[in-house]
Amino acid sequence: MRQVIFEKAKFLQHIQAKLGEIKDGYCSIELPIQDFHLQQDGFVHAGVQATIADHACGIAASTVMPEGKIPLSIEFKVNMLRPAVGERLVAIGTVLKAGKTIVVTEGEVWAYQGEQKKLTAKMQATMAVVEL
Amino acid sequence: MRQVIFEKAKFLQHIQAKLGEIKDGYCSIELPIQDFHLQQDGFVHAGVQATIADHACGIAASTVMPEGKIPLSIEFKVNMLRPAVGERLVAIGTVLKAGKTIVVTEGEVWAYQGEQKKLTAKMQATMAVVEL
Amino acid sequence: MRQVIFEKAKFLQHIQAKLGEIKDGYCSIELPIQDFHLQQDGFVHAGVQATIADHACGIAASTVMPEGKIPLSIEFKVNMLRPAVGERLVAIGTVLKAGKTIVVTEGEVWAYQGEQKKLTAKMQATMAVVEL
Amino acid sequence: MRQVIFEKAKFLQHIQAKLGEIKDGYCSIELPIQDFHLQQDGFVHAGVQATIADHACGIAASTVMPEGKIPLSIEFKVNMLRPAVGERLVAIGTVLKAGKTIVVTEGEVWAYQGEQKKLTAKMQATMAVVEL
Repeated sequence: MRQVIFEKAKFLQHIQAKLGEIKDGYCSIELPIQDFHLQQDGFVHAGVQATIADHACGIAASTVMPEGKIPLSIEFKVNMLRPAVGERLVAIGTVLKAGKTIVVTEGEVWAYQGEQKKLTAKMQATMAVVEL
Repeated sequence: MRQVIFEKAKFLQHIQAKLGEIKDGYCSIELPIQDFHLQQDGFVHAGVQATIADHACGIAASTVMPEGKIPLSIEFKVNMLRPAVGERLVAIGTVLKAGKTIVVTEGEVWAYQGEQKKLTAKMQATMAVVEL
Repeated sequence: MRQVIFEKAKFLQHIQAKLGEIKDGYCSIELPIQDFHLQQDGFVHAGVQATIADHACGIAASTVMPEGKIPLSIEFKVNMLRPAVGERLVAIGTVLKAGKTIVVTEGEVWAYQGEQKKLTAKMQATMAVVEL
Repeated sequence: MRQVIFEKAKFLQHIQAKLGEIKDGYCSIELPIQDFHLQQDGFVHAGVQATIADHACGIAASTVMPEGKIPLSIEFKVNMLRPAVGERLVAIGTVLKAGKTIVVTEGEVWAYQGEQKKLTAKMQATMAVVEL
């Protein structure tokens, strides 16, 4: 079920994101960096980072919801910490507080160059718990 | 110059966004809605809305910066107000406060169906003024 | 009823805030600036501005809720635009989107010196609609 | 020097906050909960939590700045996770990314009842590095 949120999201395919791991209160999404992800300075666009972080947060939130409920992004805030450059990005979403109507999550985006990684963005995202 | 920020941003081409109007402290970006913009529920993905709103805010910020300076997104926060459905989206960025090192902006995303429009997202974005 | 949200909030008394006007989707709160409102540089503390903006947003949100429902702050984001100095602050909360379970609001804080005013802070706040 | 940011901030005295610990990239502030901290439902006001979290983040940011530089809050975003009730609150500010002109921080607010604690608020705050 959680996987469906990834597979049915056409925009995630369009940017060539790949589902990583889903665990309780956790989801990771990988993105091999391509030329078309970049903004005018040669860094990955903030919107790309926001997309994978928000989506990872949404799937993480879905893991703490009862059957028949799905997450919908109410809002998020993201700080861009360093230029996002490298071979690939990994977005990680985790649940901070699971409520009945609202799930609060945190997202991180890491840029990898070989084994080296650095944190490029940090998000706080609020998800509504809605009927399927 | 301001236009370059749009034309050189490959990700904006990848999502088929089109530059609208640039005025002092103002920028609009248009997006004819395509299937590949959608998330799992059939609405335009929050990340797409964040991308065009952030980019419109960045170009709006650039119009109040002296020559040789460019905007870089420090952070933004966006509320998704209504499901983004329709024929096209229009993102509007405006400058709230122009400082020497920081420009604070606001972004709106409107969904159009024919002549009817509704506000689907509202952003507050903080831009750094950096050397070209 | 709306007024009660102000009168019963002891912290608003503690900082000597005064209820301004309540209209549909709107609330203003006034604060004659006192020495005890200041931070280390002599400006009104960001926390004071956040307090009156959040509270004005909450009361504004309450005006669009049915009887028996009250607002509770889920989250807010605030940009400090200029140093808050002068004779008094006025916080204005307005409703951006009234939903059944969530009301999204905007807050402004204005600093007045005589008739002159300047915008010192801008907020986006998300309110939950909860049972009394 | 870092301590001065606390001692000279009159609003922190007005709400009876006490400086906890200052370490590299870290600051804690304690607040014995008083009646005057409450909002209309008997919880500590979101503005009180924002005040101590923002201030802890500011002092944490100051520890990574060179001599002669001080922090000024550009913006913050805070999620209220649970009703803030108990004997005392502890706000913890930590540095996420120390830049030359901007320091990004995170803040937490914990409510204590005896030895039991729960996280009541989570903040992301952006601080400008300014001349003294």
